Amino acid sequence: MIHETPVRVRYGEVDRMGFVYHANYLPYFEIGRTELLRSQGHAYRVLEESGTLLVVVDAGLRFLRPAGYDDELVVRTRLVEITGVRIRFEYELHRPATRTFIAGGHTTLAATDLTGRPMRIPAPVRTLLESLLEPTPPADGGKSSASGAVQGVNP
Amino acid sequence: MIHETPVRVRYGEVDRMGFVYHANYLPYFEIGRTELLRSQGHAYRVLEESGTLLVVVDAGLRFLRPAGYDDELVVRTRLVEITGVRIRFEYELHRPATRTFIAGGHTTLAATDLTGRPMRIPAPVRTLLESLLEPTPPADGGKSSASGAVQGVNP
Amino acid sequence: MIHETPVRVRYGEVDRMGFVYHANYLPYFEIGRTELLRSQGHAYRVLEESGTLLVVVDAGLRFLRPAGYDDELVVRTRLVEITGVRIRFEYELHRPATRTFIAGGHTTLAATDLTGRPMRIPAPVRTLLESLLEPTPPADGGKSSASGAVQGVNP
Amino acid sequence: MIHETPVRVRYGEVDRMGFVYHANYLPYFEIGRTELLRSQGHAYRVLEESGTLLVVVDAGLRFLRPAGYDDELVVRTRLVEITGVRIRFEYELHRPATRTFIAGGHTTLAATDLTGRPMRIPAPVRTLLESLLEPTPPADGGKSSASGAVQGVNP
Repeated sequence: MIHETPVRVRYGEVDRMGFVYHANYLPYFEIGRTELLRSQGHAYRVLEESGTLLVVVDAGLRFLRPAGYDDELVVRTRLVEITGVRIRFEYELHRPATRTFIAGGHTTLAATDLTGRPMRIPAPVRTLLESLLEPTPPADGGKSSASGAVQGVNP
Repeated sequence: MIHETPVRVRYGEVDRMGFVYHANYLPYFEIGRTELLRSQGHAYRVLEESGTLLVVVDAGLRFLRPAGYDDELVVRTRLVEITGVRIRFEYELHRPATRTFIAGGHTTLAATDLTGRPMRIPAPVRTLLESLLEPTPPADGGKSSASGAVQGVNP
Repeated sequence: MIHETPVRVRYGEVDRMGFVYHANYLPYFEIGRTELLRSQGHAYRVLEESGTLLVVVDAGLRFLRPAGYDDELVVRTRLVEITGVRIRFEYELHRPATRTFIAGGHTTLAATDLTGRPMRIPAPVRTLLESLLEPTPPADGGKSSASGAVQGVNP
Repeated sequence: MIHETPVRVRYGEVDRMGFVYHANYLPYFEIGRTELLRSQGHAYRVLEESGTLLVVVDAGLRFLRPAGYDDELVVRTRLVEITGVRIRFEYELHRPATRTFIAGGHTTLAATDLTGRPMRIPAPVRTLLESLLEPTPPADGGKSSASGAVQGVNP
């Protein structure tokens, strides 16, 4: 499934160029995957408290167009891959009001126990995750409005 | 040149697992490139105020070992590539006290004018940047203490 | 009027004790006053872009009970005072699920022009603000569930 | 004693008016009290790990003049009061290059055990804190350069 979550840009998330500061996109992506899980009745908080942590082991971001203060954005999240110990989410951040593709990215997460030791994804968690798996990208690749511009976030 | 800058982890930068929250590494990288410029007598603030913005167009991060509250870390920064409109920095974050490689990453920045329009890097800025260019990685690849572990930052 | 806005606690807003880090309450309060204005059809973004800034000149916070990751909180905001150049908002942060009063506070804001120079609140802005004025505190003072505990946020 | 700690303003800490966002002053104050403790050989990290938490129960801030990106600021910290269960720090934030008083404030912290339960300050911690006690304000009250301006931080 592809899950969409709204996020409104806060004043403190914007830099002196008037653009969302680049580090602040990672929390938006995190909201995306948290709400994807919640939409299927699974709070990440509960998962963590039951002994399975999903820790970020790598992340990538592409900044295509700037977003500004008070913008209403949408995070489009997909769980694209599950291996024995890791899962990969992909994200697209859009501003629907202007049909603008703001940023894309991914995070890879690895399962660990509460002490941070790596472990295989427990079977019940795997079953949950497999029900969310969506390897196919959206039809337009989310890229329709992103062409032609160099843009990003400072500095 | 390879530039090293110390950064001490603040209380609010750490999550409930006791690890630096993953989004907080990007500001550490930014401190690294800012201080690399400053070490050669060039404040990014001045560059920006003179009309050249360097905006982040993509970023990548690998999280190898967790860092915790009050840790003294070092950001090792290199400017590895310059094209007509873009430059690429690479970063390694270490905790010298335990000889631990915490995280690695890169950012690509594009030159724009004050309105955010892409432009070629102006000649004086290019001359400055070329004096910093260091395409060669450090001898040990910064990887000596990173082997064997899956680790990252939550969630 | 008394305005209520929901806020869900993000992973990165929580510290290593598992509590919302104290500085992160000020953005929650800002969301409260922004949404109070918006509820009457006035975006702070538009106000600012039309030439009136409302800058924070003082703030106070009392931390009564901790809030944790993923908690659904409610910010209750009132505009309690308007003078020639300043306005004062008061805030209460609650967790409805447990009927817990988490934190209270206030901010005083002063009108300035776009260069940061103090000025009297322009008449149309004053009219808007006066329509929101609510000097009377809520019946229970928001304090019913806050008695008896020393609690706060680290460190 | 009065302790001074340098803090340089980071890019992401500044808002779209070019001023440090108001919530970002609280981490500066926290750095002030942490470094005050460290200057006497006591890491707050160690204090916390030995079982005594000092949680923030109230905070107040006055914003006098704006600070901007890359500014070199100094946090001047004093421990002004110790009771059975609480301590109070006062802070002044200055920009020495322009002799500008940027912001002032205080935080009150309460001792708790690791579960967040209030407790009396343990005797060894009290002895440490009493050695830092400085109830007398600086001679000029830090206010010499703060007169005459309404200024703050948005919104």
